[in-house]
Amino acid sequence: MNIDRIRAAADRLAGHARQTPLLSSPFLDEIAGRRVLVKAECLQHTGSFKFRGGYAALSALSEAARARGVMAYSSGNHAQGVALAARMHGAAATILMPSDAPQLKLDNTRALGAEVVTYDRASEDRDALGAALAEERGLTLVRPYDEPEVIAGQGTLGLELARQAAKAGVETGDVLVCCGGGGLTSGVALALEAEAPGLRVRPVEPEGFDDVTRSLADHAIARNAATAGSICDAIVTPSPGELTFPIMDRLCGPGLVVSDEEALRAVARAFQRLKIVVEPGGAVALAAALFRPEAVQGDAVIVVCTGGNVDAALFARALETL
Amino acid sequence: MNIDRIRAAADRLAGHARQTPLLSSPFLDEIAGRRVLVKAECLQHTGSFKFRGGYAALSALSEAARARGVMAYSSGNHAQGVALAARMHGAAATILMPSDAPQLKLDNTRALGAEVVTYDRASEDRDALGAALAEERGLTLVRPYDEPEVIAGQGTLGLELARQAAKAGVETGDVLVCCGGGGLTSGVALALEAEAPGLRVRPVEPEGFDDVTRSLADHAIARNAATAGSICDAIVTPSPGELTFPIMDRLCGPGLVVSDEEALRAVARAFQRLKIVVEPGGAVALAAALFRPEAVQGDAVIVVCTGGNVDAALFARALETL
Repeated sequence: MNIDRIRAAADRLAGHARQTPLLSSPFLDEIAGRRVLVKAECLQHTGSFKFRGGYAALSALSEAARARGVMAYSSGNHAQGVALAARMHGAAATILMPSDAPQLKLDNTRALGAEVVTYDRASEDRDALGAALAEERGLTLVRPYDEPEVIAGQGTLGLELARQAAKAGVETGDVLVCCGGGGLTSGVALALEAEAPGLRVRPVEPEGFDDVTRSLADHAIARNAATAGSICDAIVTPSPGELTFPIMDRLCGPGLVVSDEEALRAVARAFQRLKIVVEPGGAVALAAALFRPEAVQGDAVIVVCTGGNVDAALFARALETL
Repeated sequence: MNIDRIRAAADRLAGHARQTPLLSSPFLDEIAGRRVLVKAECLQHTGSFKFRGGYAALSALSEAARARGVMAYSSGNHAQGVALAARMHGAAATILMPSDAPQLKLDNTRALGAEVVTYDRASEDRDALGAALAEERGLTLVRPYDEPEVIAGQGTLGLELARQAAKAGVETGDVLVCCGGGGLTSGVALALEAEAPGLRVRPVEPEGFDDVTRSLADHAIARNAATAGSICDAIVTPSPGELTFPIMDRLCGPGLVVSDEEALRAVARAFQRLKIVVEPGGAVALAAALFRPEAVQGDAVIVVCTGGNVDAALFARALETL
């Protein structure tokens, strides 16, 4: 992985991915005690940064591979990102989702043109099923983060951010990124290393799922004890990736950890002060900026709000914290 | 009023107002039966387009007038727009607000640096009080819509929209604008007349407060029977302005009217599909595009979501329509 691959992805994404805005509010600055600049990536197509990686992966395939189609395992943001990117390339997408996934996620993924294949979590082996399907149909698997073109696609956010931060007069400080497997975090870190070396990327995770924070502290991949059970479901992964971790270990500052309650309060503040819809897992970086200011360095902090795919009931619960 | 005044305002606003994005979702296109492009002006500073007019007015004042300060009557979006614009110009802002205005609105306006002067709606005459204050302190009154520089400032949204629509390949069709006194509607209509003459501006209002729609139909200023009582409070005004109406009468297509229920459903769809927070009064144009498609013309429709200053309880109520 290197910056050239990210730049090439940015060329392919130009005019297809949105350049999401960098927002701010004096009210958030006051809470944080410093300037807070928010990259509103929840406004990306399909409501999360995952579209960037999906589009980068699809656009990097040979025509023959694209004609055979792609596959992804996901019940969430990656599924939708790959589905829309495939549709934009005229490619078939097959998405493996657990049969007990929320109906809305199944419906949304199908509505974006993907074929959804469900499996029973208890009795079926997802990987074996996926491998059989890929073999039978000649599908290319698009992994959610440990995939070079996906990392490159997510890294295009970092190229945009470098330009936007410079325009806002911010050349040094922490860039807080909501982190699951590390595809976005590592891609942005590589982009900023090249384009804005005074900015330091720091992953942010929910309590109980702080595998990246612990891995960075120990310089070795650590795993989470649990693999589900956070309202920040979009960024719950078992461990950092084998491709993403070395990049993060080389470039990223210490991780930050926030509580589910802080994530919900950040969702509410983004509603109230920025007028954007952020899901809890996409709000942990904002939560760290607002509610853990002592752990952040610099006169300004940059935050990536990574996604907004939250259901109405959970969003309403977040608003009750106001 | 003319296009040169809007262009001059755009020059002054450059780098100070946000260029808000033009968003879309295949799910909204499907509901409407045509492409729907949404200008997300709720992402503007202070959460509504009113900042544009406030900034245009402040930046057009002489240094002497600015040093004396400005005044506005408003309990809502105009108050916040003028307050922040004044602060950015180092000018004092005095905002007259009813003493029974929601505490949050009073607090927000003060937090943006304005001096809030409250009056008792039942016993005091707001206009007389304002005139006395203006006289005593030498303040310049910034009217919410019947003010040339304010119309010019709101019109800068139209200049942006003309560029964004061209980039999206839309050169003809209806542009639906949430309409109160007509400052935004008339400013955008003037901008599009010059820059995108194939686009036709149409005001959208809530039922029971359709003064502009009736005025356009009769080519004469009509008034609303009621002046309060809609959840679309931000766009409830007694009648179109004396400056704004002739512009709308010359340039705008027929008005559209939606129910409060439709406005709430549009708020919910903007949450779900665009990840933006829109207040009911800022969502009536989207409601018309989604739920009154037979009244709209063209293969694509452009919608301006004008503001996002909605309290959590009302927003949660809107989400219950999903």
